[in-house]
Amino acid sequence: MAHTSASPGALLRHVRKGRARSRAELVALTGASRNTISARVDQLIGANLLEEGGRGWSTGGRPPTILRFNSRAGCVLAVDLGVTSVDVAVTDLSAQVLATVGHPIDIADGPGPVLAEVDRLAQKVLADAGLTPADVRAVGVGVPGPVEFSTGRPSHPPIMPGWHDHPIPGAFGRYDCPVYVDNDVNVMALGEMGVTDSTDDVLVVKVGTGIGCGVIVEGRVYRGAQGSAGDIGHIYVAQPDDRTVLCRCGNENCLEAIAGGGALLRDALAAGLPVTSTRQVIELANHGDGPAVELVRNSGRTIGTVLAALVNFFNPHRIVMTGGVAQAGLPLLAGIRETVYRRSMPLAARSLEISVSDAPEMSGRVGAALMAIEGYLDEDAIHQALAR
Amino acid sequence: MAHTSASPGALLRHVRKGRARSRAELVALTGASRNTISARVDQLIGANLLEEGGRGWSTGGRPPTILRFNSRAGCVLAVDLGVTSVDVAVTDLSAQVLATVGHPIDIADGPGPVLAEVDRLAQKVLADAGLTPADVRAVGVGVPGPVEFSTGRPSHPPIMPGWHDHPIPGAFGRYDCPVYVDNDVNVMALGEMGVTDSTDDVLVVKVGTGIGCGVIVEGRVYRGAQGSAGDIGHIYVAQPDDRTVLCRCGNENCLEAIAGGGALLRDALAAGLPVTSTRQVIELANHGDGPAVELVRNSGRTIGTVLAALVNFFNPHRIVMTGGVAQAGLPLLAGIRETVYRRSMPLAARSLEISVSDAPEMSGRVGAALMAIEGYLDEDAIHQALAR
Repeated sequence: MAHTSASPGALLRHVRKGRARSRAELVALTGASRNTISARVDQLIGANLLEEGGRGWSTGGRPPTILRFNSRAGCVLAVDLGVTSVDVAVTDLSAQVLATVGHPIDIADGPGPVLAEVDRLAQKVLADAGLTPADVRAVGVGVPGPVEFSTGRPSHPPIMPGWHDHPIPGAFGRYDCPVYVDNDVNVMALGEMGVTDSTDDVLVVKVGTGIGCGVIVEGRVYRGAQGSAGDIGHIYVAQPDDRTVLCRCGNENCLEAIAGGGALLRDALAAGLPVTSTRQVIELANHGDGPAVELVRNSGRTIGTVLAALVNFFNPHRIVMTGGVAQAGLPLLAGIRETVYRRSMPLAARSLEISVSDAPEMSGRVGAALMAIEGYLDEDAIHQALAR
Repeated sequence: MAHTSASPGALLRHVRKGRARSRAELVALTGASRNTISARVDQLIGANLLEEGGRGWSTGGRPPTILRFNSRAGCVLAVDLGVTSVDVAVTDLSAQVLATVGHPIDIADGPGPVLAEVDRLAQKVLADAGLTPADVRAVGVGVPGPVEFSTGRPSHPPIMPGWHDHPIPGAFGRYDCPVYVDNDVNVMALGEMGVTDSTDDVLVVKVGTGIGCGVIVEGRVYRGAQGSAGDIGHIYVAQPDDRTVLCRCGNENCLEAIAGGGALLRDALAAGLPVTSTRQVIELANHGDGPAVELVRNSGRTIGTVLAALVNFFNPHRIVMTGGVAQAGLPLLAGIRETVYRRSMPLAARSLEISVSDAPEMSGRVGAALMAIEGYLDEDAIHQALAR
């Protein structure tokens, strides 16, 4: 049997993820000596991260003491920053929401006023949960644009004027803890994965005004060389009659210029539908309006041509659709499935699951919390915390 | 500073990859105690995997003893199985080739005769290198078709009739060691990465009769849900005038039906070029024949449309082209670059390097050796070997 790491951080992870529930199980799992395991478990208990919780079933001998992760050893702040609103939550170390609050903002007001509002909301949720700044172990922030993950600075975000290169972590100076910032699609992807110990390969595709994709490799966010992995909205899509569609990026026939929310509204207006927003097109489709259903389904087909190629290349376990246009549900999914299952290799498509997110409005907050928790409970971070 | 694992296998890796050269450097790197490191290093020396090799420079105190990986602690067999030939090499544990031999085969003869020939060649190279079966620590095999990696069995390989589900590892029963089998493109990708400790994200694209891609995530082969990741030869490619091209897989407009080696020959014959094989088209192009250059460049452009999409999605550090058609070098690369740099997002394309393999004829053997070595020196495997 293969053995796994026995560092204190790894032991904590084994207990958190349910892989071991006692010192004896940790010995069996890691192959480390009973003495080593006991000493490290005692360290983790001393740091209040593990707790002993009664006696487990045993097959003989002295019954083993059950170890539990103490998910109330601290809390994290989770910030889901959108274009027109922000949600701030405080969660425990299992991403259970303890308190949450939302507020309208205008991201174009720039980092000063917007982050001041976030700061105010964060203090409010902490107070609502009966906690103080000293309880906060880490902060996670999702923003609607590209971010240099290592510094937490947005990088030429197209719909966040004034935010380029702004050091977002600096806004959380009152908390003596690390701050993790990533783009909203990566954060939502983490939220869709949840607290499970999945090692699946997953694509989380957000279809809103733009189109983006969170790429999960073996349960973790994959970022690529410059951190721009998953940027599928500007993949070129050939049009049947050699028609060209100009994208706001300056190129022609980008996926989002043909199948994103803006394109849906444009095509609905051109077809004479009585609408003034993408949301209204979605609502019409949800009410079974024939032309609206067909427009949404066509969007799905176009998105499907790109996803079919990605299924061959990436061979994911599943694809989760999220974002405003994904709320159109069935016709979008039908168009995507029709194209993906026709154009992907049978082996890759055979057990591929394509679904719509269950709780898209929560995945941003939960994902931001998970990003913060995983950072705080990282193997190296635990190693250093215990060495102090 | 972040600390890394201090398991015996991890310590061995740190020395092999040049990250530490003494006990003191291992203590600094891992944060483990001097006693722990000394005990584990002694175990590794006892197992003949590490050796002490003289005194290093020191900044004061007793000069540290230099630790070296003993790459001659055993050998591996590397088998590069092609459609018409097989190469077998024996290498040391640093993938240095000690002896190699090649022989024509016909893969369609089936596993019985082909693997008997491989067995004969393996015994020959071992003898040539002055080694015995007892010296072999692992075997690595690359085959020209899809493989279920966990069992080493080909899975419906289109150009390996009779091989479906055949347990290839069983052919190496005379060696008391693990046998790793993977498809040739993944193996070549490992070979292109070499023995470096790279954590780059890389695509290795093989253009021969078919077109396939090895996907490297943080220095390791990425396989996906069913192990079919990188299967880009059957991605749908729209044709300018809504023309359709039938692929041998039964679908229309697959990348390899338009831009693979077979397509190149077909188009050259249709253009009236005096050729009877893809190789001759490549040779004409290499001699500057105008129509042949244009055909190869067009293949490059078509491959580029698919790679441009993958660059946006995967954001690799680099792309390496290999395989017979890639021998056409410049015109193929020019067509690929022209399309990728025009159609990819600037951030992803900015520092992307696209090159042709330096030594394509060696990457299959070196990759098979590396697959065997990494399996043998895996952290868990070392843990178990030392526990025996």
